[in-house]
Amino acid sequence: MERIAGTPYVRPMRIAISSDHAGFALKRDLAAWLREAGHEVADLGTHGEASVDYPDYGYLLADAIARGDAERGIALCGSGIGISIAVNRHPAVRCALVSEPLSARLAREHNDANVIALGARLIGSDMAKACVEAFLASEFAGANDPASRHRGRVEKLAHPPLTGVRT
Amino acid sequence: MERIAGTPYVRPMRIAISSDHAGFALKRDLAAWLREAGHEVADLGTHGEASVDYPDYGYLLADAIARGDAERGIALCGSGIGISIAVNRHPAVRCALVSEPLSARLAREHNDANVIALGARLIGSDMAKACVEAFLASEFAGANDPASRHRGRVEKLAHPPLTGVRT
Repeated sequence: MERIAGTPYVRPMRIAISSDHAGFALKRDLAAWLREAGHEVADLGTHGEASVDYPDYGYLLADAIARGDAERGIALCGSGIGISIAVNRHPAVRCALVSEPLSARLAREHNDANVIALGARLIGSDMAKACVEAFLASEFAGANDPASRHRGRVEKLAHPPLTGVRT
Repeated sequence: MERIAGTPYVRPMRIAISSDHAGFALKRDLAAWLREAGHEVADLGTHGEASVDYPDYGYLLADAIARGDAERGIALCGSGIGISIAVNRHPAVRCALVSEPLSARLAREHNDANVIALGARLIGSDMAKACVEAFLASEFAGANDPASRHRGRVEKLAHPPLTGVRT
């Protein structure tokens, strides 16, 4: 695989990407750019500019991550807010809404985020790519340390003990 | 109530606020500032600098919002990422991770967000206050329009049709 310019080596990954209509153009650009870099990209839609509902595309992406169809996900809507809420409904998925690369890195290192959400109407395509690069290049700090404080916290995210919504 | 300086009139609200240790100092400042502005603030902890797990405080806040104990919530951790994921586990709660006021306003107008998350180690206290002001001063665009496209999307956030996690 090609190295993504200016970044550390990133191994090829299976990446799922979804958006509503507001994120459609940026999704298309990111998908092409990721494929050029050697990643396998599943584009879950939407596939045009017609108005759709962001929760539908957030849920599609969350299910794909939870099933193991992709190891990382990218979710786009106008602000990134709506689709990030939808993706985080799934206890097996950890989605970070980010607008700069430091947050994208911290999302991996501290929270083992498997999805990032981006606001297609709030950040430009180069900033979006910088966020994706940081997200793909960073690893979870608790990966090889069973006693990691980060690991215990991430495990709690898989078991929300919320009134009336225990599964 | 006093007007918050430089902002539109904001009616007094019941606001719940929670954080982990990384957000403790900012939480204390925001709570005092909100009380001075005439709001009723429930501080759900943490109450010191000792290391705690952000999911615990995210779940506390989500339950408080879902029960109706507070109409708006503010969630803080180092990056805002971890606690925003935890809060969004609850289908009745919509939490937007924001770092500037435009996103805080859009979170209300488009997503009817009832919680914002802030990264206490990423933004300063004046930026945090600007985000909170925008969050409190903005209203949901679908509030008085049953046919609003925003409203239908927000309703979908309450009913995540995710494989294996239907409640």
